[in-house]
Amino acid sequence: MKVDGKAMRSIWVEPDGWSVGIIDQTALPHRLVTARLATIEEAAQAIRSMLVRGAPLIGAVAAYGVCLALRADASEESLDRAYAVLSGARPTAINLKWALDEIAAAVRNRPRSERCAAAYRRAAEICDQDVAINSAIGRNGLPLIEAIAARKKPGQSVNVLTHCNAGWLATVDVGTATAPIYLAHDQGLPVHVFADETRPRNQGASLTAWELGRHGVPHTVIADNTGGHLMQHGLVDLVIVGTDRVTANGDVCNKIGTYLKALAARDNGVPFYVALPSPTIDFTTADGVSEIPIEQRSPDEVATVTGRAADGRIETVRIVPEGSPVANYAFDVTPARLITGLITERGIIAASREALTGAFPERNHGAQ
Amino acid sequence: MKVDGKAMRSIWVEPDGWSVGIIDQTALPHRLVTARLATIEEAAQAIRSMLVRGAPLIGAVAAYGVCLALRADASEESLDRAYAVLSGARPTAINLKWALDEIAAAVRNRPRSERCAAAYRRAAEICDQDVAINSAIGRNGLPLIEAIAARKKPGQSVNVLTHCNAGWLATVDVGTATAPIYLAHDQGLPVHVFADETRPRNQGASLTAWELGRHGVPHTVIADNTGGHLMQHGLVDLVIVGTDRVTANGDVCNKIGTYLKALAARDNGVPFYVALPSPTIDFTTADGVSEIPIEQRSPDEVATVTGRAADGRIETVRIVPEGSPVANYAFDVTPARLITGLITERGIIAASREALTGAFPERNHGAQ
Repeated sequence: MKVDGKAMRSIWVEPDGWSVGIIDQTALPHRLVTARLATIEEAAQAIRSMLVRGAPLIGAVAAYGVCLALRADASEESLDRAYAVLSGARPTAINLKWALDEIAAAVRNRPRSERCAAAYRRAAEICDQDVAINSAIGRNGLPLIEAIAARKKPGQSVNVLTHCNAGWLATVDVGTATAPIYLAHDQGLPVHVFADETRPRNQGASLTAWELGRHGVPHTVIADNTGGHLMQHGLVDLVIVGTDRVTANGDVCNKIGTYLKALAARDNGVPFYVALPSPTIDFTTADGVSEIPIEQRSPDEVATVTGRAADGRIETVRIVPEGSPVANYAFDVTPARLITGLITERGIIAASREALTGAFPERNHGAQ
Repeated sequence: MKVDGKAMRSIWVEPDGWSVGIIDQTALPHRLVTARLATIEEAAQAIRSMLVRGAPLIGAVAAYGVCLALRADASEESLDRAYAVLSGARPTAINLKWALDEIAAAVRNRPRSERCAAAYRRAAEICDQDVAINSAIGRNGLPLIEAIAARKKPGQSVNVLTHCNAGWLATVDVGTATAPIYLAHDQGLPVHVFADETRPRNQGASLTAWELGRHGVPHTVIADNTGGHLMQHGLVDLVIVGTDRVTANGDVCNKIGTYLKALAARDNGVPFYVALPSPTIDFTTADGVSEIPIEQRSPDEVATVTGRAADGRIETVRIVPEGSPVANYAFDVTPARLITGLITERGIIAASREALTGAFPERNHGAQ
């Protein structure tokens, strides 16, 4: 999408033709810093320390991580090692494993001399495919916003609440939850976004607000605690969130706190949609709450907050008393029963096994 | 309660016999700083800038604020001015108005020469009454924890989730939501508290964690987004929160985000209790969502976070991009239908008009 008028993606191949450029998302929203990845270790570290995050972007970085490994050493052992290192970098995102499988399949039966080029070709395809999928999600989700806009009085905006960042920064471009929003905005519909801050890492306050602001989409940042109150007072027309993994039953694993917003949406009759590219569907799991392992991250993410001090320095401050234990679960699961619909590249479908298998019959259901 | 072994209250009369000592709660959890209030303006400012907060403590500070005003000028005009200034300091807390009415009633028909002493007597009574009420809340809530403890295996704790700070720092002593917890802990029951961070002002992370830690109660700080996930996985036995105002219908106004936890509790069959001293009941309002005005506070509370930098300085950092608007609603309303029970000084009662009027028949129902 646009950054102050200039088009940008979240990942690209550098002019040298092989190293990989990314935005260091830990420096946002205060500075736009890019980083260059030249080794698989750097790619894995970028995922691990969340310079890049968001399920589709993690998949893209992992794909290029394999390319970087094969460029240094195109052996079977190198491929296996790359797969192992990258798949362990973030445990929850299903796209990571999907992208690694795609790259591995593209190179496995080729002579060594062809592997590196084949990997780069497939990685570029994965990126372009992500953008194409997200654009389709935007087209499929747009009617939801159009329908609400048609009921509004002149001057009233369609208010969309989103949690975390499922924007273009979480993907290669366009975003998932943001895809219908950007499309509506670019078509001149009056859309306004409530962006949940999304503690502990503040991806809503730092990333969603930044990318919406840079593209020119009206928005308001709110504390995560606020969404229920807004919905009680009719201030939210629609919730759209992204997801890190959707089970075969339609349960949605997403950033911690998503489940609470789904409960509030149901209690107030607000439609709750999840936007997802189909690689996010994990047909090998059924019940999300009992089957998806939830990543626990460093207590420091809760105990401290990083931001820009008055003098411009980036500073980390501690908000929890010394000696107080902290728990930091990164994701939760929103049961399918709370979800109005899944916005996919093939249309809006119910959050159910029947709808998912019906929409994606070519996926090897339950047998992966 | 105890601070590292030494008993402490949140408000006291200084050894000079008239000025008022408080804990500057904005300096917690990193430093224990006390402040001395010598004028009504200082008392109002302490409430406004949240050096003190929590409905019962605000009431106590307001009561002493009138004392300070009358000490300087015991006229009718001075009393009226004090009432107006203090009642405008925080719009939501009903105890504020209750305490002011109590003090005004205690002095109104007395000769000027007696007013100041009468006000100090009534203010001291209000403080002692708060402690007595909270102790009764503790005794009445204790059986809830005892019953869960009786079902636990040896070594297992009773896990209580609380939101914001309804601890002794929010009252004169003992706290409301914490009263059963402190009593259970002091009696040797294994109780563990999940303390919601409570953005945007982090009263859970900074105040609840501090006071529980100083008294020795096991606890874990979590992001506000986390409670739903914990409840889905059976990690919360009981929710106890405080409140700033309870309507005649039993709707509960409390720190923003409380409603979301009530929804999660209901969805997972976790009992959700609200602890309240009866002055918090507002028999003049019925429907909380439509009738209670929700205070909107400075956007800076959301856009920035204050904490302790690595070098020990207290620093404020900005987490929202420049130019992104912010909304900051301070409270929300949890409808009575989501509340398992109200823990009052007269026992645990249903969140309903019948139960409230039945338990407090002497209150001038609906006619205040």
